[in-house]
Amino acid sequence: SKYEYVKQYEADDRLLPGCWIVVRLDGKGFTKFCDLHGFEKPNDERALRLMDEAAKARASGRSLRRGAPRPCRCCRRSPHAPGRALLLPQAVMSEFQDVRLAFGESDEYSFVFARNSQLHGRRASKLVSLVASCFSASYVRFWAQHFPGTPLAATPMFDGRVVLYPSNHTLRDYLSWRQADTHVNNLYNTCFWALVKSGKSTGEAHEQLRGTLSDYKNELLFSQFGLNYNTLPERFRKPASCGCGCLVAVLQGSIVIRQRVMHVKQTADGGTKEKERLEPCVLHCDIIRDAFWAQHPELLA
Amino acid sequence: SKYEYVKQYEADDRLLPGCWIVVRLDGKGFTKFCDLHGFEKPNDERALRLMDEAAKARASGRSLRRGAPRPCRCCRRSPHAPGRALLLPQAVMSEFQDVRLAFGESDEYSFVFARNSQLHGRRASKLVSLVASCFSASYVRFWAQHFPGTPLAATPMFDGRVVLYPSNHTLRDYLSWRQADTHVNNLYNTCFWALVKSGKSTGEAHEQLRGTLSDYKNELLFSQFGLNYNTLPERFRKPASCGCGCLVAVLQGSIVIRQRVMHVKQTADGGTKEKERLEPCVLHCDIIRDAFWAQHPELLA
Amino acid sequence: SKYEYVKQYEADDRLLPGCWIVVRLDGKGFTKFCDLHGFEKPNDERALRLMDEAAKARASGRSLRRGAPRPCRCCRRSPHAPGRALLLPQAVMSEFQDVRLAFGESDEYSFVFARNSQLHGRRASKLVSLVASCFSASYVRFWAQHFPGTPLAATPMFDGRVVLYPSNHTLRDYLSWRQADTHVNNLYNTCFWALVKSGKSTGEAHEQLRGTLSDYKNELLFSQFGLNYNTLPERFRKPASCGCGCLVAVLQGSIVIRQRVMHVKQTADGGTKEKERLEPCVLHCDIIRDAFWAQHPELLA
Amino acid sequence: SKYEYVKQYEADDRLLPGCWIVVRLDGKGFTKFCDLHGFEKPNDERALRLMDEAAKARASGRSLRRGAPRPCRCCRRSPHAPGRALLLPQAVMSEFQDVRLAFGESDEYSFVFARNSQLHGRRASKLVSLVASCFSASYVRFWAQHFPGTPLAATPMFDGRVVLYPSNHTLRDYLSWRQADTHVNNLYNTCFWALVKSGKSTGEAHEQLRGTLSDYKNELLFSQFGLNYNTLPERFRKPASCGCGCLVAVLQGSIVIRQRVMHVKQTADGGTKEKERLEPCVLHCDIIRDAFWAQHPELLA
Ligand SMILES: Nc1nc2c(ncn2[C@H]2C[C@H](O)[C@@H](COP(=O)(O)OP(=O)(O)OP(=O)(O)O)O2)c(=O)[nH]1
Ligand SMILES: Nc1nc2c(ncn2[C@H]2C[C@H](O)[C@@H](COP(=O)(O)OP(=O)(O)OP(=O)(O)O)O2)c(=O)[nH]1
Ligand SMILES: Nc1nc2c(ncn2[C@H]2C[C@H](O)[C@@H](COP(=O)(O)OP(=O)(O)OP(=O)(O)O)O2)c(=O)[nH]1
Ligand SMILES: Nc1nc2c(ncn2[C@H]2C[C@H](O)[C@@H](COP(=O)(O)OP(=O)(O)OP(=O)(O)O)O2)c(=O)[nH]1
Ligand SMILES: O=P(O)(O)OP(=O)(O)OP(=O)(O)O
Ligand SMILES: O=P(O)(O)OP(=O)(O)OP(=O)(O)O
Ligand SMILES: O=P(O)(O)OP(=O)(O)OP(=O)(O)O
Ligand SMILES: O=P(O)(O)OP(=O)(O)OP(=O)(O)O
Ligand SMILES: [Mg+2]
Ligand SMILES: [Mg+2]
Ligand SMILES: [Mg+2]
Ligand SMILES: [Mg+2]
Ligand SMILES: [Mg+2]
Ligand SMILES: [Mg+2]
Ligand SMILES: [Mg+2]
Ligand SMILES: [Mg+2]
Ligand SMILES: [Mg+2]
Ligand SMILES: [Mg+2]
Ligand SMILES: [Mg+2]
Ligand SMILES: [Mg+2]
Repeated sequence: SKYEYVKQYEADDRLLPGCWIVVRLDGKGFTKFCDLHGFEKPNDERALRLMDEAAKARASGRSLRRGAPRPCRCCRRSPHAPGRALLLPQAVMSEFQDVRLAFGESDEYSFVFARNSQLHGRRASKLVSLVASCFSASYVRFWAQHFPGTPLAATPMFDGRVVLYPSNHTLRDYLSWRQADTHVNNLYNTCFWALVKSGKSTGEAHEQLRGTLSDYKNELLFSQFGLNYNTLPERFRKPASCGCGCLVAVLQGSIVIRQRVMHVKQTADGGTKEKERLEPCVLHCDIIRDAFWAQHPELLA
Repeated sequence: SKYEYVKQYEADDRLLPGCWIVVRLDGKGFTKFCDLHGFEKPNDERALRLMDEAAKARASGRSLRRGAPRPCRCCRRSPHAPGRALLLPQAVMSEFQDVRLAFGESDEYSFVFARNSQLHGRRASKLVSLVASCFSASYVRFWAQHFPGTPLAATPMFDGRVVLYPSNHTLRDYLSWRQADTHVNNLYNTCFWALVKSGKSTGEAHEQLRGTLSDYKNELLFSQFGLNYNTLPERFRKPASCGCGCLVAVLQGSIVIRQRVMHVKQTADGGTKEKERLEPCVLHCDIIRDAFWAQHPELLA
Repeated sequence: SKYEYVKQYEADDRLLPGCWIVVRLDGKGFTKFCDLHGFEKPNDERALRLMDEAAKARASGRSLRRGAPRPCRCCRRSPHAPGRALLLPQAVMSEFQDVRLAFGESDEYSFVFARNSQLHGRRASKLVSLVASCFSASYVRFWAQHFPGTPLAATPMFDGRVVLYPSNHTLRDYLSWRQADTHVNNLYNTCFWALVKSGKSTGEAHEQLRGTLSDYKNELLFSQFGLNYNTLPERFRKPASCGCGCLVAVLQGSIVIRQRVMHVKQTADGGTKEKERLEPCVLHCDIIRDAFWAQHPELLA
Repeated sequence: SKYEYVKQYEADDRLLPGCWIVVRLDGKGFTKFCDLHGFEKPNDERALRLMDEAAKARASGRSLRRGAPRPCRCCRRSPHAPGRALLLPQAVMSEFQDVRLAFGESDEYSFVFARNSQLHGRRASKLVSLVASCFSASYVRFWAQHFPGTPLAATPMFDGRVVLYPSNHTLRDYLSWRQADTHVNNLYNTCFWALVKSGKSTGEAHEQLRGTLSDYKNELLFSQFGLNYNTLPERFRKPASCGCGCLVAVLQGSIVIRQRVMHVKQTADGGTKEKERLEPCVLHCDIIRDAFWAQHPELLA
């Protein structure tokens, strides 16, 4: 038609080839959203698991996972397995096979696409909108499974952005940035809510913590609240290598990578057949140090 | 932290000021998604209404709409009102007050932001990701209301893009482009499915329609299927000015603009108070000709 | 060859259609360059004329201009004519026929391309680099004509940028911004150098002028230096409509537009033939008020 | 002023950090420009040396180079030295200290900026316009030295573009792409002009060469024109490692890198003092194979 010329106003936004593509999502106004739905403070395990679900859930209608996935190569522990088989869910890592790795903490999730991914011709707005769309739709879809009894009272939304990292070095620094942020925020928040629960106002709690170092906060948890951050059960601590307990998610954030998982398929003659499949699994490892990367050389290859 | 430098890799993607910002969403792989959920062909009214809902639904917890919204200024008819009060829904036009106008057809929706909108500093990826996220989350959230009895069997996703239009003229041409596309596609699809329902294979139907003009297709509907496209009940036709029946949505697409709607609020002393509020309403007008724009001068002001 | 894939790393930088394209050049380190070549302070007429030349000069090998170009339509005065016929020079406005208008002041020049120009597919880097290249090469080429006896002692360089303006209104505001800047800077510089020539140090001069208003500076020129800025010969003043004297260039900046100019061509039989041609001419009008634009409606058409 | 808001229409065009920045210039319409100035076909040594000059010339007013620069580390030969001391010239590699390496051939030149260069905040239009401006102004400025007796009859212009390469590997492939292009074009052009000089029309010459391989062209030069491309004096051939003769520039292109050059400075007491300085020097090496890069590890460091 004579109106078709308007299509030329669309800009070409293909991303530079040869760079790692990171799409980072962050919940819009989650301070309010968490309040509205009564999330536990500072870390609501249901919420974090829902985030992980939206990041990784996959179709599994035709086969059932057999128990836990293989143990993590770096820490020899099993990643935590979802409590039930999901009916044909599709979420970011399942929908976008080019996502090599994801990292989540609090209300945010970062997805790392292979540096040579040609998905959607590397068009920035396609990638950022589809990832945001998939994650948000999945979040609503899986809500009831993670928050049974709590109806959704507002529409959860996530903003997105695309960032390019030209080298393995800068990509690792990006992920280290996010994980170090998790450590710092979590220690702060743990102290903050401990103070608040002990009767301080939020203003007083902020005041007491302002400008303090990690040592001070660890000491505070120990002396005032009887928590020795270093003698906590492993799952609550930031572990030397990797811990797969759920609360560690709070501390290390969630790392999602594709691991081999054994599946059992029903055969036509009524028997069963085992098949190993790559499947997105959640870990709670340290990804700042080299050990993780040495154990997973395929991630940066 | 020493990793913070990676933040500098984020590009500044602020959009040129002074231009109309259009965010267009389009369902990903909806050919398959529609099949999977048994959508009626060629136009499933439930699906179209769900799209409209995701585009416009708004919070209404504290007050109830009193009957239908005011009649449309151009056609003197009432826009169709949602059948039930929605509990605190939030969707694109309610969430983003800077959206002046939206246009939807098939599996796509375009949102027009005010040319001087400063929302999120006009950052392209913020806008496109948030709109896609809000729409997708709302689509899932409102699914059950529009498809009672049909469980969601896949995650609906929408890609998004941002396009700038520097003048009123080019913006109107954009909207005309989308509406003309609706007309053409709908006439084709109506013929196509009429042929298929009459026993043709899809290949044969395509073959018969290939390269034909509007006149041929209108004639076909009349002579072969007893439908006179021009003597159909008004709501099925592309009307001279504006028709507010639901099936016309199929033909004209859905135009969403903010109209004054009367609300009744409970007062503290048990009485009620009326208040007129601007609220996103769906129309099915012709927006190619000047009449609509003359009637709604505030849209381009 | 197997290396050709690297071409894909080139980004598409086509500019949004339908917008005015402004390319602004600015001399790099001209504070030093002007010093090195002993430019007069604050305004060196030779330098300004050389800038104008680089902005507009054109091929004229085959015909000679007959006297002055037609008088300006708004002020009825003649634009100043170059003193001599140039041998086949080519500069920005002659090279780029899509440039509608240019505005120069100090060490900068802005070139306005027609809003629908398709030159080089509207590729930003093509436009900005070619304009900078053409201007710089012309500046060196014409140097000796404007600075006879002063050899070029450094390579003059100009940085460039592209800015889009979506409407006539914003384009005019852009040009008003540059011209208002000329007014303000010139009044300041005239005072500053008058103070310095009267014996003040540059530091003292800056100090005395810091934060002062126009009135103060006009008064200073009048009372201390015997200059009444408002009773100066017209060419030295910022005129009500338009003044074509050279020194006004200093105040109003240089506006270059295409005007009809009479040319005399030698015919084969030894006679002559007159022909009117559009040619870039320099004016020193006010372009902030409406009068100029009313007189030149073709500029924004 | 109230117009200042227009500054906000300038887009932020900072280039992604951590990538090699390549600025490539290419002469605009040089087919015509070369013709107009009677350049030798296919390769005019004066023209190529002028290009090299515009790429690398530097200030040398205060000291004189002592003989030839140090021999090339890879081929043990001396880069060719300019025939005379230039008076205060400034050209691209001297002006832009962040340029690590340049490569020139025909009417084009590529400049490689250090991957972490912060020059002009990595703003793309600043870089591309300044390089184009500096090169073009220098080309005009040095013209008379390289073309004595040939007045400049048109303004030489160069378009520019910026391309990012995220890794050493892709940067080397870029440079290999340009050098392989030089090889192929030169063999073609040598054959083409040999055929034309032997009496063929340009159409016939093109026809005869169309689609032929290197072997055919080498054989043609040998059998028809008595030239054995492989037994030519080394400087005419594409050498195994590096040849520094001038005509090889034609074949290998010009590589400009910074080398230590001995300078002699006059001291206050009338004596002299030697000082080694890094200075841009032209080589004609193979840069496709590893040898060159092994010899110059600092280039990619
Ligand atoms: N109570 C609770 N709050 C959480 C949890 N996870 C995240 N949040 C809250 C804490 C923060 O207020 C908020 C995340 O911080 P952001 O900087 O993303 O702020 P917010 O999303 O409010 O604003 P934004 O739209 O991102 O600028 O979400 C949780 O597990 N429990
Ligand atoms: N049966 C039925 N199909 C519909 C309805 N609305 C949209 N669709 C289908 C028809 C088309 O196959 C599809 C929309 O066309 P698109 O060009 O957007 O293709 P699709 O979404 O499959 O692929 P895409 O990911 O957008 O490239 O959605 C409806 O109401 N009923
Ligand atoms: N003496 C004299 N100086 C002039 C004339 N025209 C321009 N200039 C000088 C005055 C300013 O110092 C300089 C222009 O100011 P800019 O802000 O462009 O600074 P500059 O070019 O030094 O630095 P830049 O590389 O543009 O950031 O050029 C003139 O006619 N006479
Ligand atoms: N005779 C002669 N011609 C040369 C020499 N160096 C370059 N040229 C000519 C050959 C080509 O026609 C032209 C370079 O080819 P381009 O593809 O850059 O084309 P051109 O500059 O004409 O057009 P463009 O504006 O770059 O698209 O310059 C030389 O040394 N001698
Ligand atoms: O943590 P971020 O990157 O989201 O930081 P922010 O302060 O929320 O800034 P932005 O406006 O970029 O989301
Ligand atoms: O209708 P559109 O604009 O989505 O057209 P498309 O052919 O789907 O192309 P795109 O890859 O831009 O979505
Ligand atoms: O006058 P401008 O726009 O050149 O302003 P500037 O302060 O020189 O800034 P820039 O770094 O954008 O040239
Ligand atoms: O050799 P290039 O890259 O200049 O190729 P081109 O065919 O001249 O194309 P362009 O329009 O990008 O200069
Ligand atoms: Mg944020
Ligand atoms: Mg948030
Ligand atoms: Mg957050
Ligand atoms: Mg599409
Ligand atoms: Mg679709
Ligand atoms: Mg569609
Ligand atoms: Mg500047
Ligand atoms: Mg300057
Ligand atoms: Mg300046
Ligand atoms: Mg080219
Ligand atoms: Mg060329
Ligand atoms: Mg070329």
